[in-house]
Amino acid sequence: MSTSAQPAAASVQDLVASLARAGRAAGRVLARTPSADKERALKLAAAALRRAAPDVLAANARDISAAETNGLSGAMIDRLRLDEKRVEGIAAAIEDVAVLADPVGAVIDEQARPNGMVLQRLRIPIGLIGIIYESRPNVTADAAALCVRSGNAVLLRGGSEAVHSNRAIHKAMVEGLVEGGLPADAVQLLPTQDRAAVGAMLQAAGLIDMIVPRGGKSLVARVQAEARVPVLAHLDGINHTYVHHDADPAMAQAIVRNAKLRRTGICGAMETLLIDATYPDPHGLVEPLLAEACELRGDARARAIDPRIGAASDEDWDTEYLDAILSVAVVDGLEDALAHIARHSSGHTDAIVAADQAVADRFLAEVDSAIVMHNASSQFADGGEFGLGAEIGIATGRLHARGPVALEGLTTYKWLVRGSGQVRP
Amino acid sequence: MSTSAQPAAASVQDLVASLARAGRAAGRVLARTPSADKERALKLAAAALRRAAPDVLAANARDISAAETNGLSGAMIDRLRLDEKRVEGIAAAIEDVAVLADPVGAVIDEQARPNGMVLQRLRIPIGLIGIIYESRPNVTADAAALCVRSGNAVLLRGGSEAVHSNRAIHKAMVEGLVEGGLPADAVQLLPTQDRAAVGAMLQAAGLIDMIVPRGGKSLVARVQAEARVPVLAHLDGINHTYVHHDADPAMAQAIVRNAKLRRTGICGAMETLLIDATYPDPHGLVEPLLAEACELRGDARARAIDPRIGAASDEDWDTEYLDAILSVAVVDGLEDALAHIARHSSGHTDAIVAADQAVADRFLAEVDSAIVMHNASSQFADGGEFGLGAEIGIATGRLHARGPVALEGLTTYKWLVRGSGQVRP
Repeated sequence: MSTSAQPAAASVQDLVASLARAGRAAGRVLARTPSADKERALKLAAAALRRAAPDVLAANARDISAAETNGLSGAMIDRLRLDEKRVEGIAAAIEDVAVLADPVGAVIDEQARPNGMVLQRLRIPIGLIGIIYESRPNVTADAAALCVRSGNAVLLRGGSEAVHSNRAIHKAMVEGLVEGGLPADAVQLLPTQDRAAVGAMLQAAGLIDMIVPRGGKSLVARVQAEARVPVLAHLDGINHTYVHHDADPAMAQAIVRNAKLRRTGICGAMETLLIDATYPDPHGLVEPLLAEACELRGDARARAIDPRIGAASDEDWDTEYLDAILSVAVVDGLEDALAHIARHSSGHTDAIVAADQAVADRFLAEVDSAIVMHNASSQFADGGEFGLGAEIGIATGRLHARGPVALEGLTTYKWLVRGSGQVRP
Repeated sequence: MSTSAQPAAASVQDLVASLARAGRAAGRVLARTPSADKERALKLAAAALRRAAPDVLAANARDISAAETNGLSGAMIDRLRLDEKRVEGIAAAIEDVAVLADPVGAVIDEQARPNGMVLQRLRIPIGLIGIIYESRPNVTADAAALCVRSGNAVLLRGGSEAVHSNRAIHKAMVEGLVEGGLPADAVQLLPTQDRAAVGAMLQAAGLIDMIVPRGGKSLVARVQAEARVPVLAHLDGINHTYVHHDADPAMAQAIVRNAKLRRTGICGAMETLLIDATYPDPHGLVEPLLAEACELRGDARARAIDPRIGAASDEDWDTEYLDAILSVAVVDGLEDALAHIARHSSGHTDAIVAADQAVADRFLAEVDSAIVMHNASSQFADGGEFGLGAEIGIATGRLHARGPVALEGLTTYKWLVRGSGQVRP
């Protein structure tokens, strides 16, 4: 270990601690800010972002130019690139979040005790949320808006490719929030791209209350492996669709096609198709996929359906392709499908297509994933589609919040006890 | 590092992993077990424990004898000691938990989407809970009963002082549960007292879903520091009672006395008293405590109330005494009290005694603790007193569950989506 590295690491830790303390103080103010004031401040932030569009686009041009110099892939550059329409989209998304129902202050439940004390559980913000994300600059605004709407302060750490874009978006948003009377530290962007700062955030137990990683698998895996702060995330979306033998063939075909190919790069995309051995038209399920140049990798029985289906390796059943690739297995009825899913699902979204309600009910009851669907496309696994307005992420952990996490998942509760002098006997 | 230590550590890890896998399999069965069957199995477990009372008492005698040989303190030996009445109490407590309302299967909320899909959030067990506890053998039965009632499997690791008692209680409970049709692995007791096994449990992310430590501060601190598995716990109960200047003196006196002295060793006991500088009868608050030989340590203004009040050091404001000791500060009104609490509270239970409803409302709103009380003794901070039946513990973290955690805190939810062929546009 070089001795010169020590002070730098310490100073990054100090920096994160100092930002976190400022964020926590702002969070205490936010927690008491009325819903209407948060709404107004977010609308002003959206307006400020619209005004700042030329600055944001100029900053983004610097990021794009650096990305091109550094040889980033076309897909990464596309995720990074902003234009007037995208900036308008970001501003409009802030406004959408601004008017979402505020979960803070809701009474979750209430009871009067026999001794006359009245107990309530009151929904409150969590405090300070850390967001660690990669190249999409819109996350800066989306995540900040969700945190502020739910009364939380947020500490953002974006990817270095988007550093100028993120700073410009952050600057504009804070202008609007401050104009709306919120503390400037409600939304902070880590001022350094030093990777040690990510480590410092992950270790900041007691200073940062929860961390949400937004990005690829390697980012999420690092966050989950290193964090001492609770993490809300999903690592994989290895999602199964099981076509039961009595499934309506037209429905099954439409759901399978949509679940795989509507968008292949989202975490709700199907990655494994399980076809019942006695399903009458297996070829009808795979043909539309093959016709759209989707690569299929199957077990022996699946390969018998169509010669264009390649051989799946053991690894395929545990792979999230996020691409036009699908693993296909033929299973012997519901039990076999459940066993395959129990072994290989990442606990994100698994679906059954079946006519028999009893079969569907068993699938819904026994599949232990965050989202379990009957007769619907797994691509619906999304906070917006679930009517939550927008999501901070999708969680596959078992505690706090699962599936699409929106404003409610950014809150906790406290117990209020109102007495009239009660003492405990 | 000695080479011979390696295989042992690995084998303890393997042991924990193998127990955890067996527990998870049992948990999947428990998750599907109807409420009435869990109730019946727990009642059979209570009956089996009653039948096994002679064995349990014989085992306990071995633990007591070892404890005496090892020179354990009288208080520790008392916590360890069982007699017929205590065994009956443990059995009765299992029966109490058996009939608590089962949270599993409740629909948290439901909505129909515009496209016709129906979404529900269904309450389900968490999976496998790890309990790491110290010398009280009743925790073996209490924690196991709460986990089973809520459909969770449990892996218990008790203290070495209580090893024979725990094994006898565990053996009897499992007999009853198996008689009731539940899998034997629903409740497992770690068969080794190797301390490395605790470390292996704490590292078993993905195998154990949540760990609840039950014991002293050093145990909880170790668990919180080392765990890679989510932990539900509180480290300290540094609880404040603030007596506002308009508090009814008789009420304030009764609450202060009860909050400190009813039982000094419980986490809900008051540890710091904040007296408003303009409260008319400060001596009336401290006199009953001094009369009962409670040691008071105060700041300068508090010491002026009574010469028997000693000087508090800086440390006192951050100390959980769990004893007949109280720190006392005089504060200048609500703001000053809130500031003191924000700086020193451990986030467990803080209380105000006040007549002015607006003052009380601000206190309830602004104190950021798991439990905030108005005109009641902090000793009510308890799952039973909160009408939850029994508690697995009290949590001061911000995620998942806060305050007294009972059956609901041992559950999570999944999203069920029922469609009729919907695909995402």
